[in-house]
Amino acid sequence: MKQQVNEAKGKLGILIPGLGAVATTLIAGVAGINKGYSKPIGSVSQLSRIRLGKRTEDRNPLIKDFVPLAKLEDIVFGGWDVYADNVFEAASKARVLEPYQLEQVRAELEQIKPMKAVFDRNFVKNLDGQHIKEGLTRRALADAVQADIQNFKKENNCDRIVVLWCGSTEKYIEGNAIFDSLKNFEDALDQNDLRIPPSMIYAYAALKQGAPYVNGAPNLSCDVPAIVELAQLMQVAIAGKDFKTGQTLMKTIVAPGLQARALGVEGWFSTNILGNRDGLVLDDPENFKTKEVSKLSVLEEILDAKKNPELYGNLYHKVRINYYPPHGDNKESWDNIDIFGWMGYKMQIKINFLCRDSILAAPVALDLALFIDLAQRAGMFGIQEWLSFYLKSPQTAPGLPPEHDIFKQLIKLQNTLRHMMGEDLITHLGLDYYQELVDSM
Amino acid sequence: MKQQVNEAKGKLGILIPGLGAVATTLIAGVAGINKGYSKPIGSVSQLSRIRLGKRTEDRNPLIKDFVPLAKLEDIVFGGWDVYADNVFEAASKARVLEPYQLEQVRAELEQIKPMKAVFDRNFVKNLDGQHIKEGLTRRALADAVQADIQNFKKENNCDRIVVLWCGSTEKYIEGNAIFDSLKNFEDALDQNDLRIPPSMIYAYAALKQGAPYVNGAPNLSCDVPAIVELAQLMQVAIAGKDFKTGQTLMKTIVAPGLQARALGVEGWFSTNILGNRDGLVLDDPENFKTKEVSKLSVLEEILDAKKNPELYGNLYHKVRINYYPPHGDNKESWDNIDIFGWMGYKMQIKINFLCRDSILAAPVALDLALFIDLAQRAGMFGIQEWLSFYLKSPQTAPGLPPEHDIFKQLIKLQNTLRHMMGEDLITHLGLDYYQELVDSM
Amino acid sequence: MKQQVNEAKGKLGILIPGLGAVATTLIAGVAGINKGYSKPIGSVSQLSRIRLGKRTEDRNPLIKDFVPLAKLEDIVFGGWDVYADNVFEAASKARVLEPYQLEQVRAELEQIKPMKAVFDRNFVKNLDGQHIKEGLTRRALADAVQADIQNFKKENNCDRIVVLWCGSTEKYIEGNAIFDSLKNFEDALDQNDLRIPPSMIYAYAALKQGAPYVNGAPNLSCDVPAIVELAQLMQVAIAGKDFKTGQTLMKTIVAPGLQARALGVEGWFSTNILGNRDGLVLDDPENFKTKEVSKLSVLEEILDAKKNPELYGNLYHKVRINYYPPHGDNKESWDNIDIFGWMGYKMQIKINFLCRDSILAAPVALDLALFIDLAQRAGMFGIQEWLSFYLKSPQTAPGLPPEHDIFKQLIKLQNTLRHMMGEDLITHLGLDYYQELVDSM
Amino acid sequence: MKQQVNEAKGKLGILIPGLGAVATTLIAGVAGINKGYSKPIGSVSQLSRIRLGKRTEDRNPLIKDFVPLAKLEDIVFGGWDVYADNVFEAASKARVLEPYQLEQVRAELEQIKPMKAVFDRNFVKNLDGQHIKEGLTRRALADAVQADIQNFKKENNCDRIVVLWCGSTEKYIEGNAIFDSLKNFEDALDQNDLRIPPSMIYAYAALKQGAPYVNGAPNLSCDVPAIVELAQLMQVAIAGKDFKTGQTLMKTIVAPGLQARALGVEGWFSTNILGNRDGLVLDDPENFKTKEVSKLSVLEEILDAKKNPELYGNLYHKVRINYYPPHGDNKESWDNIDIFGWMGYKMQIKINFLCRDSILAAPVALDLALFIDLAQRAGMFGIQEWLSFYLKSPQTAPGLPPEHDIFKQLIKLQNTLRHMMGEDLITHLGLDYYQELVDSM
Repeated sequence: MKQQVNEAKGKLGILIPGLGAVATTLIAGVAGINKGYSKPIGSVSQLSRIRLGKRTEDRNPLIKDFVPLAKLEDIVFGGWDVYADNVFEAASKARVLEPYQLEQVRAELEQIKPMKAVFDRNFVKNLDGQHIKEGLTRRALADAVQADIQNFKKENNCDRIVVLWCGSTEKYIEGNAIFDSLKNFEDALDQNDLRIPPSMIYAYAALKQGAPYVNGAPNLSCDVPAIVELAQLMQVAIAGKDFKTGQTLMKTIVAPGLQARALGVEGWFSTNILGNRDGLVLDDPENFKTKEVSKLSVLEEILDAKKNPELYGNLYHKVRINYYPPHGDNKESWDNIDIFGWMGYKMQIKINFLCRDSILAAPVALDLALFIDLAQRAGMFGIQEWLSFYLKSPQTAPGLPPEHDIFKQLIKLQNTLRHMMGEDLITHLGLDYYQELVDSM
Repeated sequence: MKQQVNEAKGKLGILIPGLGAVATTLIAGVAGINKGYSKPIGSVSQLSRIRLGKRTEDRNPLIKDFVPLAKLEDIVFGGWDVYADNVFEAASKARVLEPYQLEQVRAELEQIKPMKAVFDRNFVKNLDGQHIKEGLTRRALADAVQADIQNFKKENNCDRIVVLWCGSTEKYIEGNAIFDSLKNFEDALDQNDLRIPPSMIYAYAALKQGAPYVNGAPNLSCDVPAIVELAQLMQVAIAGKDFKTGQTLMKTIVAPGLQARALGVEGWFSTNILGNRDGLVLDDPENFKTKEVSKLSVLEEILDAKKNPELYGNLYHKVRINYYPPHGDNKESWDNIDIFGWMGYKMQIKINFLCRDSILAAPVALDLALFIDLAQRAGMFGIQEWLSFYLKSPQTAPGLPPEHDIFKQLIKLQNTLRHMMGEDLITHLGLDYYQELVDSM
Repeated sequence: MKQQVNEAKGKLGILIPGLGAVATTLIAGVAGINKGYSKPIGSVSQLSRIRLGKRTEDRNPLIKDFVPLAKLEDIVFGGWDVYADNVFEAASKARVLEPYQLEQVRAELEQIKPMKAVFDRNFVKNLDGQHIKEGLTRRALADAVQADIQNFKKENNCDRIVVLWCGSTEKYIEGNAIFDSLKNFEDALDQNDLRIPPSMIYAYAALKQGAPYVNGAPNLSCDVPAIVELAQLMQVAIAGKDFKTGQTLMKTIVAPGLQARALGVEGWFSTNILGNRDGLVLDDPENFKTKEVSKLSVLEEILDAKKNPELYGNLYHKVRINYYPPHGDNKESWDNIDIFGWMGYKMQIKINFLCRDSILAAPVALDLALFIDLAQRAGMFGIQEWLSFYLKSPQTAPGLPPEHDIFKQLIKLQNTLRHMMGEDLITHLGLDYYQELVDSM
Repeated sequence: MKQQVNEAKGKLGILIPGLGAVATTLIAGVAGINKGYSKPIGSVSQLSRIRLGKRTEDRNPLIKDFVPLAKLEDIVFGGWDVYADNVFEAASKARVLEPYQLEQVRAELEQIKPMKAVFDRNFVKNLDGQHIKEGLTRRALADAVQADIQNFKKENNCDRIVVLWCGSTEKYIEGNAIFDSLKNFEDALDQNDLRIPPSMIYAYAALKQGAPYVNGAPNLSCDVPAIVELAQLMQVAIAGKDFKTGQTLMKTIVAPGLQARALGVEGWFSTNILGNRDGLVLDDPENFKTKEVSKLSVLEEILDAKKNPELYGNLYHKVRINYYPPHGDNKESWDNIDIFGWMGYKMQIKINFLCRDSILAAPVALDLALFIDLAQRAGMFGIQEWLSFYLKSPQTAPGLPPEHDIFKQLIKLQNTLRHMMGEDLITHLGLDYYQELVDSM
């Protein structure tokens, strides 16, 4: 039974708080793809196929041909930043992409100029941008962002808007009564409560405008009861948090494999070296704390010590991030995994990932924007757990533990799409292939 | 609807051609576990839990409590080898386990003495054992192995027998008309056709005796039409081939993760160093060829170049095994993976796995024996593709491409068990959790 | 011209403040070697040969046969510790050596019981031992240690004593006027100035007793003007500081190689994981600071940015130590080195050293004790820079920059020995071999 | 006493058999440096300083300011190749340097066109170039190369010529009577003996023309008695063989460090992946054999098992090279080193070098050319062992074992330069610094 999914007609505006390395890499890439210079490598929505029916039917359409996604040529980008650089300038400074590739899309990038950002240095000490909305209360900031969204939508003749947080990681905060209900939150806005972080103001404003909201960083943003309540009320889709790239991507690939084989894990040491602005922000312990919590949680869930105390009861997990300028955006991770097998014998796995932070994040950001737009058109609102495939710290229904195993996340994503389009869910049982063999004898 | 599964009453004889490092590690481990010295780490059948029903139901029994497996204390081990050493002596020479652990089960191991092996040095040049059935035709060898099985079953008062090939990798052979039908094969046996490798004689003898057969090495053994036909005819279960451990295990964990994310792979270089008897055998190019074919195939299937030419069309995959005595059984692999992402930017992953060959293989061998015994009791005969989770080169129905992605293999295994016991298959869709949320508003 | 070197007659007492992992490994090893169970691998004094004369003379005696060293069987060990465990108990808890090896020398180790330590928790927060000299002023502590040394020497009938600091790294302190002259230091002792760290009290007491002193940790200890002055005055040899093992050993091997080839170095990131008591102590930032300064300095000197600004002017060097209990004493380091070559092209070197902290340190400690005893008998007093081969942060004459290149340090050590015994110094010029060729034509 | 060294007046012609990746990278680099675009990173002759006198004198001139080397702007390049591409085309195909850098020196490179090569496919199966001197006997080829040298020298108005073999590795050959004396060799030339490999013809021709000859590959070339005899007779300098770069460079850095510390080595496994023409040539076992012998020898000498059987008596050393096109010229090596220390405890070192073959080789080639020209002007003829610093398999006087330790090679090189210029040789003894301290008391 196929769900009702509205077509992706007209333009889709993607508005991004934080036009830094990830966002500019995304924008430059989409521009390059639209001009035929480049391919959307790493984008599941654009390049992956989905199996339908039995293995022997050989039906494997591209996902973008299977579900009605917005087309890349229908996307209009915009955003906010604490620096006034246009996207060409920002991309050049980020030094992720080769100069000759930026030149190919220079005109497209130069015309995207950031709107002034909502910023509060109390939440990100190591940044000092000046291109910010100054002198406004929290409520006034929320209003200003809503106005920005309305204007952008109108000026660019957009049919729909998605807001996608690509800003820096804000400092660690725990739950607070002001985030516990929509009423409390709106009261706090009115009282200009400075405990409200900028990223929540963007989330609030987006939802009030009916725009789905995705959070690519580990700070709470839309992951508090107040914002979830608003999403339900406004019937808008949300998803978060923290793009899953690099080391944690690797971890949620490898850990399920070890767990699948009932191999014990005694220790997992993860270190990172990176030299981009993200590295600089995370050099502040308060901001690193936010990231650390996000990065640590994945193993606890995948290697569930409560269910398997003999295997994971003594797991020691440590994550470190080191600011190391020589590498720039070329983040590198090194993992040492201490495992044990049959009769307790010890073994070790070392993984050295020479990755590129923004190159891995850009297609993730793209897919999240396109899929949340799809969800919205399919009438799926509130938390979109099926997008947890892309996220380090997936937002779930209250009381429901998140699923971090990337392969379960993938099946969830694929079966959600199949379900949406009325196709059979895949269970990989496949006993029928062999029944046929017997029958044919 | 639950399948009819006969109970696991009485003793299960596990007969092993090749009482080398893997087999003796398995036997010593089971003896140690039965005496309370050790735990079956790495054995999914013994230690893993299986989720039943919804995530929120929290039903996660151990697999061994969910399906009626033979108990470890009901297993009796026996086997054949080209060396006359008893299992204690063979385990000591294999130098996999610490001497003090072997002492703990010395009596149990010493009483297991190998029967004379079927051996033909044309298939394994680098071995020179003398404990072999000499001067017999192929047909007479098959008869002798059948007699061995009957005797063992009777002497040890076994209810059921499983035969598990843990012998060395035989040299590479391609298909041949004599393997193409049961009739041809039996004619060849009668004509003492020396192209029949020893491992096929064991497979033939096992099936004729109604004993399920598992092949842990990459040589063909039961993976030819003649033997499959015999399995169907005798209604006996078979599975193969090549225990999936070490580097290939890692490869079928990591490659699905890259594929899931639509990351391109340009090159994958895999090298191994090991110094055990397996390493010595594989130092002969003819035997390495058999292993190489098995190890190479996994990437071709997971990273399907035909479906994704932009991502995998230029993949260069190379696998090397190097005999390196200083490491003994402590096999070590090093992989260099050249990937590319958004806009074609290149990244690299290096994986260094300091593993232990037999420690990884022993629980795999155990699980295969227990699960194929279960399948047999559940009336599932012929090729057991659901056991492909454990195998580098899974045997499948004719014309059906094997599935190498370990996570799909895992779901197949788990859903087969659920199906067997009449439980709902898991699809990871989970939209209902969120529907409840909406309903509750 | 051979120097006058007194013979090594009678017993040599080696007294060690800090009977932890390194010291107990040293003591157990020497006991094992003396009983014929083990070999002094890693000890240059015991196993290395020294070339004498021309390459073609083929004169390469063992160093221990070339210079008159104390014999291993003439060593008597003793020491102080904050825990009351005897050396067998301490070695067992350190879990460096296999239990069966400790059993072989159990009697020898059990009879060595620590004297009460000089300890001040202000200098090492993460330790909490109670086996300490309590309620004494700094001066009284110095007197007590001198009495300990006298008693030990008498009771054990020693001809000579060497004191070897193997205690934990004390917290970072910079120079202070009280350390600037012997007079100031003795005044501070008299005034019970609590800024005097325990390790200086040991150094002071040793020198007052005419016993050479070696510092194996990075804290200052004997590396202040006051103690140097005392060493000159008493005509006693001193050396320090910080045993060069593991990552820094590797660094002072590899960096000279890069520098030799005029390869540029842009970044060097070093991280360590270890889980022994040393790791616990260094988990305190104040103590890590002491270690960090010691570990960082080596590159600055070897890759001299002032002399080669194009090659090393932008070097970013970062060192991290992480407490990681799963590894115990099996310290592991991972280095990423960003180098550049011809025309500025970038390359990377990754070094992963799976080492064992105490196994590397024990022979270094042994050699330092034996060589400083030799120096003392050769009439060489004050700072023994020729022992810098063994030290991360070598003590040198005031104003003289230390030499960190391990190969220059080696030549210095070897040429010092040759000089001592009146042999020609080696310059590796060797043009004469070719002159002979010409002459013979 | 300073040696007599003639000034480097006029132009130096560097003639290169084999204008492939290394040679074109060298030529492009020198052109770029002369135009101010680039720096000679990796060139000791250009960038390294040499210490003169005592440490405290602080005399550290650049080597190029200390000894009278030819200037980079006085070099004229030429050469021979089996392909007719000019140096710009060849460099472009080699894909070592970025296109924009080649454009900067396009004119300079385009004007260098290879002369036809001496080539015999029996010595290099995997190459198929057609730009060769055809139909000539061995003697006629030698005459033709001599004529080439004369013409080049005249046309380019060179004062001096150096010939530098940068061609592919020829297949393995062992000694033969025809190489044993100059007479035999010349007889063989006259008889057109096809066992004479092309590289020897170049060596012969160069020496006959009075041009020093350097061999950058592992084939014998000038390393046979016949050619050494000719070098003595003609009073010309020679050096070889095999540029020391990448993995072997690393090995001769690390092995001396382990040996210095008396650490045992039980196994050393080295593998390489590379995808350039060199990789293709070495994919042929006969050519790999030549390289293997060169690469294996270094450990045998540095870790001298005869002198230290307890430490190196069981060393298992294995070297592998794998052709792996995805990496092109970006050769990557991975080493696993199994060491053991105090009481026999095992440790491991893994080194992963992501290097660039030609980037490392180019400055080595440059230095060898400049230094052998210097030697010639200093009247040093025959084998120049002091250049072994740059070579995997250094040529030495008959009966004299080569020195592979790069640090001894470095001292040899530096002390040779000091000797040449009448400076004191450095011994690193340095006791005088401390004597002063005593004297000053």
